Amino acid sequence: MQFYEDVSVGDTQHSDGYRISKAEIVEFGEKYDPQPFHTDENAAQDTVFGGLVASGWQTAAICMRLHVQNSEDTATQAGLGIDDLRWHRPLRPGDELRLRTEILDKRASESDPSRGIVTTGHEGLNQDDDTVISYEATALVQRRADGSE
Amino acid sequence: MQFYEDVSVGDTQHSDGYRISKAEIVEFGEKYDPQPFHTDENAAQDTVFGGLVASGWQTAAICMRLHVQNSEDTATQAGLGIDDLRWHRPLRPGDELRLRTEILDKRASESDPSRGIVTTGHEGLNQDDDTVISYEATALVQRRADGSE
Repeated sequence: MQFYEDVSVGDTQHSDGYRISKAEIVEFGEKYDPQPFHTDENAAQDTVFGGLVASGWQTAAICMRLHVQNSEDTATQAGLGIDDLRWHRPLRPGDELRLRTEILDKRASESDPSRGIVTTGHEGLNQDDDTVISYEATALVQRRADGSE
Repeated sequence: MQFYEDVSVGDTQHSDGYRISKAEIVEFGEKYDPQPFHTDENAAQDTVFGGLVASGWQTAAICMRLHVQNSEDTATQAGLGIDDLRWHRPLRPGDELRLRTEILDKRASESDPSRGIVTTGHEGLNQDDDTVISYEATALVQRRADGSE
């Protein structure tokens, strides 16, 4: 298990790719983001995107999946929040998203000695190495019981 | 249709409620955020949450749904980004989430006279009026062709 003490500022990770299908875009759009450019291939032609694109929240959720798969051994307790989330480019049917993360900051919790607070930069890239989404996520990570580094 | 010119800073809206089920939490968790506190009722007992909770990304996605339902007439072109997203409290099976939004800022686009940029504060509340999630969303909104207010 990777505890707070095992995480270092500057650590980077690269995920596998996740290819998104048209059906997946429409399913998520109909449930959570029912706007024409996420749900209706024909109507999407007449929007600024010129075709179907994934909901930005689906793009973020796929990054979460890739991050969890990459950090299964980390003793993450809970997410606290997200800063500076930007959707740089749309994610289209057939695109492959992969995630690059970097530890930006870590600090001990002042209120609870059993945990620390870790901020991680996330960047989602498509198959052409274009940035699709970026954000910084802050989470609680468990400390070792004995506090050893 | 509500264009950029029809949006005023200080405008507020309140959505209907959305009740989340255990099955929905687990389905989203398995697909996008496979951590024990989102996918496994028994394992979740031993986490800081003490039981199943919705992925924070699912909570955000439900807010998006409530926002789209509330603003179907608004000529939104695309989302640009999210700032200061905070998960204040978990969303648990059976909880009902509703959304309060307030227009915080609007400005014309410098690069494209056909659109404006609108920032909206979002607050997701549960059935006890506790804040579950909050964030600021910035989006492109179409201007009237003749620019009339």
